[in-house]
Amino acid sequence: MSTTLVTGIGELATGDPALGDGSALGLLSDAAVVVDGDHVAWVGPARLAPDADHRRDLGGRAVVPGFVDSHSHLVFAGDRAAEFAARMSGTPYDGGGIATSVAATRAATDEELRGLLAARVAEMRAQGTTTVEVKSGYGLTVEDEARALRLAREVTAETTFLGAHVVPAEYADRREDYVALVTGPMLQACAPHARWVDVFCEPHSAHAFTADEAREVLLAGRAAGLELRVHGNQLGHGPGVQLAVELGAASVDHCTYLTDADVDALAGSATVATLLPGVEFSTRSPWPDGRRLLDTGVSVALATDCNPGTCYSSSVPFMLALAVREMGLTPAEALHAATAGSAKALRRNDIGRVTVGSRADLTVLDAPSYLHLVYRPGVPLARALDLG
Amino acid sequence: MSTTLVTGIGELATGDPALGDGSALGLLSDAAVVVDGDHVAWVGPARLAPDADHRRDLGGRAVVPGFVDSHSHLVFAGDRAAEFAARMSGTPYDGGGIATSVAATRAATDEELRGLLAARVAEMRAQGTTTVEVKSGYGLTVEDEARALRLAREVTAETTFLGAHVVPAEYADRREDYVALVTGPMLQACAPHARWVDVFCEPHSAHAFTADEAREVLLAGRAAGLELRVHGNQLGHGPGVQLAVELGAASVDHCTYLTDADVDALAGSATVATLLPGVEFSTRSPWPDGRRLLDTGVSVALATDCNPGTCYSSSVPFMLALAVREMGLTPAEALHAATAGSAKALRRNDIGRVTVGSRADLTVLDAPSYLHLVYRPGVPLARALDLG
Ligand SMILES: [Zn+2]
Ligand SMILES: [Zn+2]
Repeated sequence: MSTTLVTGIGELATGDPALGDGSALGLLSDAAVVVDGDHVAWVGPARLAPDADHRRDLGGRAVVPGFVDSHSHLVFAGDRAAEFAARMSGTPYDGGGIATSVAATRAATDEELRGLLAARVAEMRAQGTTTVEVKSGYGLTVEDEARALRLAREVTAETTFLGAHVVPAEYADRREDYVALVTGPMLQACAPHARWVDVFCEPHSAHAFTADEAREVLLAGRAAGLELRVHGNQLGHGPGVQLAVELGAASVDHCTYLTDADVDALAGSATVATLLPGVEFSTRSPWPDGRRLLDTGVSVALATDCNPGTCYSSSVPFMLALAVREMGLTPAEALHAATAGSAKALRRNDIGRVTVGSRADLTVLDAPSYLHLVYRPGVPLARALDLG
Repeated sequence: MSTTLVTGIGELATGDPALGDGSALGLLSDAAVVVDGDHVAWVGPARLAPDADHRRDLGGRAVVPGFVDSHSHLVFAGDRAAEFAARMSGTPYDGGGIATSVAATRAATDEELRGLLAARVAEMRAQGTTTVEVKSGYGLTVEDEARALRLAREVTAETTFLGAHVVPAEYADRREDYVALVTGPMLQACAPHARWVDVFCEPHSAHAFTADEAREVLLAGRAAGLELRVHGNQLGHGPGVQLAVELGAASVDHCTYLTDADVDALAGSATVATLLPGVEFSTRSPWPDGRRLLDTGVSVALATDCNPGTCYSSSVPFMLALAVREMGLTPAEALHAATAGSAKALRRNDIGRVTVGSRADLTVLDAPSYLHLVYRPGVPLARALDLG
């Protein structure tokens, strides 16, 4: 392994309050980083930087921790742009359109899905995302779910079994049989390829799962060695948040509708509230009160939920802009939520910060400050830094 | 001049209702375009395409007319990211921050400004914009305004004299002297480098111009051979729209606050209403009712207003997404507004469409349909096609 000294970093967001300006972002100006193989070996002011085998000058650009997109659904085929256009003209979302993606995904070959997945991960990396969590959930058979996770595992360690994405149409009249499948043979086939188990717990959609069904899915997943995450409180008030906290899930995602009791439960827990503002944008839903969550002491993450139905955006900077415009986060809080915050939602200590020992996941901006990620919405300023 | 046959266009938005599907976008699938030098020589189904000297295959991607960004302020120096962050935390916008950019712009050398301008135009082109209007307005002296327009003319034919951007601080107690300067020596120095004259007509800001002052500026500009555009109705109800219609301006821009009488005046006029949703996004202002304007028969354009104070976004696709999410436009109407609509706002017939004789300004999407420009917000899908 050779070392590379990265210099010319006009502003570095380390994510370590012990470094730099003492804020949660740990901002250093005129900084340098030494990368040794796949990890960070040194961080500090450029004038104190040690020597290295190679040098890379970033010309005064800002560097932030590679974005951690802790919630995505990238294994799918088909195109739902027309459904999106119809929804923008007034058709409401209730989760039913997922069936379209399920049919196209089942019909696709491994090679087709592998190509689509690789293109989506590359698109994310070109926008600054260096870690992505990928869920199954468009297969909904034992074979198709296991295939999705096997392919996802080729591109990320953060794979999530989401057989309980929706109740497939063919099980509409016998939901209990589908839950038995998900918690039985499907789980057994998927667990070897997955780190996480997830469930769409949503009483407001007939396609989703009740609290009791969701608990059954999560407990079976835990028994099979998986860690827990939950889709909850997206379409209305519901039991998702309380269930996630009760079972010690790493994250409950969406949190669009929260009661006072939900916020209190989150604040007293180790469960992260993952906000997905691209979904509210693309479905014209109300915005979660991110400000309140932060002020109450809840750990907040930001992710894309990149998926063909409710938010086909892979842009973390777009999520930052929405979180600031619509959810009351400051630019610094938004960046923290999409790096250290989403790393916590994945229970990872080695990503989401630029500190000694962390993975060498650096995202460089065509801008002098991380503020430009929010100041310049829609402009592609961020890219993952490729060294060597 | 050599000819190039562009094939592999999965979907072509020609902007000509006589072509393709008969909609205002004139959609053709499996299309081809022959480019002869700087103009379009042939458009039609790929199977009927004539031969050409060169060939370029786009692999099934969608092509749309190059975006026409009919409102921008690109000649400035300095960084106002911190002001933006403060505003996001609650500081209201009243136009006063422009003074910061004026000071930095006056202090910059020609070479610095030329470099900044070139980088901004390149950034726009990389996002699919092939025509950009550029205003002065951060000089506010005879020398500095003329310099801004001279530099802008190096990158675009669509240059706009905006000496009446704000009343500079040094004239706060003698506004009439500044209006005399703008309509006198400054106009004489600027007119040779400008096509348009513009004014920030806004009774809700002490820094902007009243209806009488604005009329004086516009009439002087017209007498000097310039065509008219107006910044109006941004911060509240006001006289901007009525003045623009009265004087036959090509466009009145912002239109955030409109009365029934304003809408009626626009509907009966040749003046385009240019919507700038990035400004509403970045200043947390109410959204104009684009749907109502279209339904009333008003010609609507979309542009970025790219500027360091109220919207430092150069992304036309971001504006399309906002126009659909927040202003009631369909994806097709939004694309039309940012191509043919903004071409009309510049009184240009040779851009904004892909038809025989129009300029060869093609924007290619990493997507199968123009719908993805809105379906995939924040993702950089569009780029201007470089041929040869
Ligand atoms: Zn999801
Ligand atoms: Zn403007």
